[in-house]
Amino acid sequence: MSVSIGDVERAAERIAGRARRTPVLELSPGLFLKLEAMQHSGSFKVRGGFNRALAAREAGELPEAGLIAASGGNHGLAVAYVARALGVRAEIFVPTVASPVKVAGLRALGAEVNQVGSIYAEAYEASAKRAAETGALEVHAYDQSDVVAGQGTVGLETLEQTGGVDTVLVAVGGGGLIAGITAAVAGRARVVAVEPELIPTLNRALAAGGPVLVEVSGVGADALGASRIGRIAYEVTAAAGVESVLVPDEAIIEARRELWRSCHVAAEHAGAAAFAALRCGAYTPAPGERVAVIVCGSNTDPATLA
Amino acid sequence: MSVSIGDVERAAERIAGRARRTPVLELSPGLFLKLEAMQHSGSFKVRGGFNRALAAREAGELPEAGLIAASGGNHGLAVAYVARALGVRAEIFVPTVASPVKVAGLRALGAEVNQVGSIYAEAYEASAKRAAETGALEVHAYDQSDVVAGQGTVGLETLEQTGGVDTVLVAVGGGGLIAGITAAVAGRARVVAVEPELIPTLNRALAAGGPVLVEVSGVGADALGASRIGRIAYEVTAAAGVESVLVPDEAIIEARRELWRSCHVAAEHAGAAAFAALRCGAYTPAPGERVAVIVCGSNTDPATLA
Repeated sequence: MSVSIGDVERAAERIAGRARRTPVLELSPGLFLKLEAMQHSGSFKVRGGFNRALAAREAGELPEAGLIAASGGNHGLAVAYVARALGVRAEIFVPTVASPVKVAGLRALGAEVNQVGSIYAEAYEASAKRAAETGALEVHAYDQSDVVAGQGTVGLETLEQTGGVDTVLVAVGGGGLIAGITAAVAGRARVVAVEPELIPTLNRALAAGGPVLVEVSGVGADALGASRIGRIAYEVTAAAGVESVLVPDEAIIEARRELWRSCHVAAEHAGAAAFAALRCGAYTPAPGERVAVIVCGSNTDPATLA
Repeated sequence: MSVSIGDVERAAERIAGRARRTPVLELSPGLFLKLEAMQHSGSFKVRGGFNRALAAREAGELPEAGLIAASGGNHGLAVAYVARALGVRAEIFVPTVASPVKVAGLRALGAEVNQVGSIYAEAYEASAKRAAETGALEVHAYDQSDVVAGQGTVGLETLEQTGGVDTVLVAVGGGGLIAGITAAVAGRARVVAVEPELIPTLNRALAAGGPVLVEVSGVGADALGASRIGRIAYEVTAAAGVESVLVPDEAIIEARRELWRSCHVAAEHAGAAAFAALRCGAYTPAPGERVAVIVCGSNTDPATLA
């Protein structure tokens, strides 16, 4: 179940020219923002989606039925984007409470949208059942090796584009991004996991010695709202000794405003969480420490940026 | 009055570490966006402001009275930003019709704001009179060699960050940016001047053989609304044989929306004008032509992006 740097390097070759090589902004000397919020579909999630689908295609296992996923958020948009780019079908399951804006966004990308159940878990169950019927390729939001390896390409690019950093700050939801980045930068940079205080899935798992269910709420819940850390993420980050820090919602809100104010970067709350750790002192770099912050998503109402 | 590549290179040394080295996004193979919209104060204008003020300081001519400028827009914000960064005073003259939001933005940067006259020309006259009284250093919005050389650093960075392009598309207001970039890339890339159909100051000047007054209106008027092209800009671009194209306001509006939709880049209308030339066919690259588009400003209400 683990993911190696070799897996991430193969993913980088596979998705080159499909996922965008997003730019890096040096905000102040030695402080770099990796602007993954400018990725296709508005978040890093297309990297894992492309890697999962292209790895299957290489193995002759990309089915006629296309891709299937459960998500009312960034993952769903990403899978719909990937399917369109590869010319295959996408079926996305969302709970009935999903916002009409997101459903419309999925449909605009050509996805078939099924609204099932009142919570995510019910939509997920329905998607798994449907996948068994149609044979469509399930693309998990975080807990598949190919998905994790794809997300890890963010880490490879960050090291290349910055000329190397000491530390990478990464927001954690289900943990696909942090697992991939941890694998990608192993031995070259330390990784700090940033979670909202109200969604401490990795923090609790590291304390408990394994994934545990947590209550989920707050401003990051729409994009970081997995209620349990993924198995791969737990294994990879625990083995690497990833440091875990928590940030209050007020810090996330402030960090998102500051990204807009200081450089007109549009981030969603989850996308600003890693930056919040610096702003509120949850993580304080040593003098001269080179730090990269992954700004991982921007699917937000721009009217709320200023 | 002309500006050479040597002037631009000296400016680059002078402003290094003060103006931001803004990132470049490769939107599709060979099509690069220079994201100058992420510059301090939200536009390229700080580059010229820093170069003007620092050149004066080098010469021992940065007065106690600080910097003075007339502008209700990006230039005023930039001069206020530069003054604060250098620890000197800024006095900014704006017409009484300037938006309260912009006035508040100037004051937030610590500038003294004087609201004089009903149009820009009256505010400008008042600022020139005041400068004569106080001895403050006038920072013109476009028609000073040091200002032009500073803006030209956008061109140097663009060539470095892209590995070289065939063509640079630049929006034109008073012409400081295009003059600087034309000097910077001379002999290495061609420059295409993009203006709104409703503000064709360079286009008319090139046809007439010299700067002429034009009527100014449309969505670009707040940032590209000089009613006559600057003398330096005319001389530099005419000598270089810069190609001039015009774009309708609808294309600018569409291009701005597309920048948001495709990569969550926040641009003001003027900042999207150069991109509009590609979108609407006012400029069509040859097959394989490498093109850089300068996204030059982002001082916009984000609520209007989507």
